[in-house]
Amino acid sequence: MKRVLAVLSLCTGLATNAAMAYEWQALPGKAPEPADNPTTPEKVELGRLLYFDPRFSQTGTVSCNSCHNLMLGGDDNRPFSMGVHGKMGGRSAPSVWNAAFASSQFWDGRAASLEEQAKGPVVNPVEMGMSDLEKAMDRVRAIPGYEPYFVRAFGTDKPMTVDNAAKAVAAFERTLITPNSPYDRFVKGDKKALNAQQQRGMKTFAEVGCTSCHSGPAFNGPAMKAGTGFFMKFPTFENNEYVKKYDLMKDKGRFEVTKKEADKHLFKVPTLRNVALTAPYFHNGSVKTLDEAVRVMAKVQLNKDLSDGQVKDIVVFLNALTGEFPQMSLPRLPATPGWTVIGDQK
Amino acid sequence: MKRVLAVLSLCTGLATNAAMAYEWQALPGKAPEPADNPTTPEKVELGRLLYFDPRFSQTGTVSCNSCHNLMLGGDDNRPFSMGVHGKMGGRSAPSVWNAAFASSQFWDGRAASLEEQAKGPVVNPVEMGMSDLEKAMDRVRAIPGYEPYFVRAFGTDKPMTVDNAAKAVAAFERTLITPNSPYDRFVKGDKKALNAQQQRGMKTFAEVGCTSCHSGPAFNGPAMKAGTGFFMKFPTFENNEYVKKYDLMKDKGRFEVTKKEADKHLFKVPTLRNVALTAPYFHNGSVKTLDEAVRVMAKVQLNKDLSDGQVKDIVVFLNALTGEFPQMSLPRLPATPGWTVIGDQK
Repeated sequence: MKRVLAVLSLCTGLATNAAMAYEWQALPGKAPEPADNPTTPEKVELGRLLYFDPRFSQTGTVSCNSCHNLMLGGDDNRPFSMGVHGKMGGRSAPSVWNAAFASSQFWDGRAASLEEQAKGPVVNPVEMGMSDLEKAMDRVRAIPGYEPYFVRAFGTDKPMTVDNAAKAVAAFERTLITPNSPYDRFVKGDKKALNAQQQRGMKTFAEVGCTSCHSGPAFNGPAMKAGTGFFMKFPTFENNEYVKKYDLMKDKGRFEVTKKEADKHLFKVPTLRNVALTAPYFHNGSVKTLDEAVRVMAKVQLNKDLSDGQVKDIVVFLNALTGEFPQMSLPRLPATPGWTVIGDQK
Repeated sequence: MKRVLAVLSLCTGLATNAAMAYEWQALPGKAPEPADNPTTPEKVELGRLLYFDPRFSQTGTVSCNSCHNLMLGGDDNRPFSMGVHGKMGGRSAPSVWNAAFASSQFWDGRAASLEEQAKGPVVNPVEMGMSDLEKAMDRVRAIPGYEPYFVRAFGTDKPMTVDNAAKAVAAFERTLITPNSPYDRFVKGDKKALNAQQQRGMKTFAEVGCTSCHSGPAFNGPAMKAGTGFFMKFPTFENNEYVKKYDLMKDKGRFEVTKKEADKHLFKVPTLRNVALTAPYFHNGSVKTLDEAVRVMAKVQLNKDLSDGQVKDIVVFLNALTGEFPQMSLPRLPATPGWTVIGDQK
């Protein structure tokens, strides 16, 4: 009996070592910044106002926060987001939390930076629906209270530009990071931060091979030069029930941007930080629960059938990636005394 | 010369006295509370979460704050609000700021209390679009993190009810008051709080007769028993260009609720607190600027043609009714780890 226990203990030890051989990394307390847009408190404050302001959407009803809700998991918990006039796009809103750690933006990586990303939804007809960026900026410029914020952030020489607005929003988004999750505390040495099941899930996560894509401190792939993007073919294995059930062949991913055959069905590897808060899952929001998302990913990406126990353990581990959200005050948006910048938009 | 000046000074003095004879009142620092729903910090905290949570609308995209935006003037600066699927109603969203000082709610006074009002938009098909209140409450009940808030606010005996949710939202709304406007400080004795033009506007406001309806601390009529409502016929004078131009005869107001002939075109007298922040104006949002709103009101309610100077002075005074907004933190809404309560709603 003693001998059997010893062997079991040896096995456990080996498995743990195998999982621990993977280089687990904690989330840095600060996001990387591009050389041409260092984060300053003044930009962050302006960006925060712009982020929450719905008045630059065609109808005056949609802000960045409408689909990337900072009171929730940084998304909208919907399969597809709902923009102006109740219009919908064809991909699920990614979380804005920790987006600063991605080397490209959007599911298809079509924006090289947060600055570039910030401009997209404003003129997307099914999102904020403005006809062009200058028209959106005209509204910002028409609100008297915004000018001082732009001056403080960008100086007095024509500060109220589209590029500066995008820089401010990006600077704000670089503060939207969620460190100190139980996982981070564990990796930093607090061995009580994860319970036994969470640690087992962590090990399984690595052993099964999830870390081959979901690596690095944000679980979104290896460190890459800003603008590069880390993409994977999804689905990789097409011959299974899930591909049809969740309609995974419909969206051609990065191919829609590049039109290169090699980019067909390539998608950016999303962060798994706070993944417990961002159901439904995948680019098309087709999977309702994290359990099922784990099961499907193992099959369509790694061709593995996980046991229910493995799925449960991994899910429990993924819940430990929910971090601490920065406290912020509800902004007061600059006013238009006696008139409305939304105008006739009905 | 000395004599002329003396006479002028006498006239000014008389006019000032006439205006000052009107009993100007400052906004109380606390809103009245119904006996069956005393305001407690626990209810306020729960109500604040519910107020900002979009997940109880059919699409998961519309919260109380969508149309009554606390980052702005407590409304949405649109003629008509936009609800689920981009649907629109036929009346302009009133401000939630200081709604606690009204003795009835909605433009037609169809809700006797904030508690009753809070239930309306949830099941209005063009607002939050839920099929019934219990279905909305099912979503609240399905989010595990809400229970402790309900228990703290309402005790352990089946606290998660529609009525308690409405009570919590109402309690939160009773904290949404904006005292200490320049006007309030002036009335309390700080004679420098209003400049000469603002004081002139204040006098004109009373002399012209605006105070016959817009009286009391909230400028929404005399103190009345909760549930009563203070209504006026709008328009009172129909024989002028504005009635047609702004389509003022279309909406029959309180008649739509009571079907009584005497209630035709009766509307609740809205507060003028923060009126500078809530363009466009009137129940149908037909008037784009506060200047024009003042001009139209004088004509259609008092049959008076104001001079441009009078309009300007009154508008400057009305801007002095913009109060101090309470600081609050951005709420973190309770999560649904690994799934979404919005479900299939597309």
